[in-house]
Amino acid sequence: MTLVRHIHVIGCGLIGSSLCHIINQKNLCEKLSIYDADPAHRDMIKDLYLAPFISEDVTEYVDQADLIILATPIGSFSELIAAIAPHLKEGAILTDVGSVKNSVVETIEQHLPKSVSFIAGHPIAGTEFSGPKAGFAELFENRWIVLTPSEHTSDETVEKVQSLWQAGGAKIKMMTPKEHDLVLALTSHLPHMIAYTIVGTAVNLEEDMKKDVLELSAGGFRDFTRIAASDPTMWRDIFLQNKDAVLEVLGRFEEDLSNLRRAIRRQEGDALFNHFKETRKIRQEILDRNQL
Amino acid sequence: MTLVRHIHVIGCGLIGSSLCHIINQKNLCEKLSIYDADPAHRDMIKDLYLAPFISEDVTEYVDQADLIILATPIGSFSELIAAIAPHLKEGAILTDVGSVKNSVVETIEQHLPKSVSFIAGHPIAGTEFSGPKAGFAELFENRWIVLTPSEHTSDETVEKVQSLWQAGGAKIKMMTPKEHDLVLALTSHLPHMIAYTIVGTAVNLEEDMKKDVLELSAGGFRDFTRIAASDPTMWRDIFLQNKDAVLEVLGRFEEDLSNLRRAIRRQEGDALFNHFKETRKIRQEILDRNQL
Repeated sequence: MTLVRHIHVIGCGLIGSSLCHIINQKNLCEKLSIYDADPAHRDMIKDLYLAPFISEDVTEYVDQADLIILATPIGSFSELIAAIAPHLKEGAILTDVGSVKNSVVETIEQHLPKSVSFIAGHPIAGTEFSGPKAGFAELFENRWIVLTPSEHTSDETVEKVQSLWQAGGAKIKMMTPKEHDLVLALTSHLPHMIAYTIVGTAVNLEEDMKKDVLELSAGGFRDFTRIAASDPTMWRDIFLQNKDAVLEVLGRFEEDLSNLRRAIRRQEGDALFNHFKETRKIRQEILDRNQL
Repeated sequence: MTLVRHIHVIGCGLIGSSLCHIINQKNLCEKLSIYDADPAHRDMIKDLYLAPFISEDVTEYVDQADLIILATPIGSFSELIAAIAPHLKEGAILTDVGSVKNSVVETIEQHLPKSVSFIAGHPIAGTEFSGPKAGFAELFENRWIVLTPSEHTSDETVEKVQSLWQAGGAKIKMMTPKEHDLVLALTSHLPHMIAYTIVGTAVNLEEDMKKDVLELSAGGFRDFTRIAASDPTMWRDIFLQNKDAVLEVLGRFEEDLSNLRRAIRRQEGDALFNHFKETRKIRQEILDRNQL
């Protein structure tokens, strides 16, 4: 099932390489090309046969491709779109896979030629690994892809980009960029911020206590260290680009934390018990939605 | 390898039932008895052949046992020790498995007869399940058991209680009650407090956004909901009994969170990147210690 003649993927990390696997397996196009800035990545792409056309020039293939997928870190998007916009083919479709949507959509649409249709996207899927070798065709199976259409999105674009993700077994959810950013700020960005903080708190402990903390890191802390081992560049960019939504949910979180702290300080056992009973229900709701 | 003639386990939850499996498999005593307040638990103990002697009277067997293990929720310890203390056999050994040590040690030693030797303990092991059916002999394999000896602890007691846990494949770490409580406040109690908070923040969201939060709960939030589904009674007791250490590490955490929040608000990308690089190292240190 060919979607378009020529697909061009910009950036071959976990998401980009996984998409290449899917595009190849499902024959989604006649010609697949990839750009990656990193020579080591380009070698891996060749060794893994991810695509027959590999470029080190960010503008190459951009003028020929019918569907272009931006899959570099979001911090690079501003420079990237400025560089490729003048070369985009008339009638081409542009999409991205960035973890933040509002600022990304603004940046891209600022440079977008009228003749190009754009839909922003974010696959809610990942592993703790990165780079071309990390990708696999099943990464998006039964996972959500958030798409945020705008006035720059044609019906054909919605359909083609949906089909691309559905070829990988994904489910599609339409949201506005701001809705996406607020929800992800709570489900992903705030948890990362907290994990980064609490592991940082441990870094600052006296050496004796730190050793005990590392050895006795069963339970909660161990989960936090896994989250806090995520890619520093990616997460710096997410916090910078989704500042407003992150600070908004952080404010709500801090209010709720103060409440719980006060209940502990005042030894209010019933209030604690009732709160913990409520949060247990949420776990059950997620299990019922088959998200685990 | 018989440790003592008669072991009595008070409370048959995950930890108590796992200890029974180990005691039976390794023949650690000639006579094993269990007390549990819950009739359903007592039926399960019978069906699972966890112990031949099962009691619904908290003082029964206490006057005969050579080693008594307190494995009920720590909130019950005050009443429990007051009830059993007058009946304890001369020369008996008493230990516990509670998640908090300083307040527990104070409570127990307040009632302890001079003729009984006591060592407090805390196995750093668990699953998300509870009750007599949840136990299994391998629960403590290669996990840490923290023991906090005091002036009420004889050398023989250290040796016997160490041997009990080592029979289950555990590793022993000696600490003071206060050290234990501060380290666990950071590695376990604070992570639980934060998970309970952030999942509670989600409970309070508008219905529309809550639905999206539950569906898009990949990554961080999903881990938090698992932690926040922990037993409400156990965690109420932990926060009440380890109040001081929890508020102490919470204070450090809040300072560090303010720092990170300021870096986000001021768009200090380098500071964020450097912080995230540091925390990534901690994960590696834990991996190097074979804790994962």
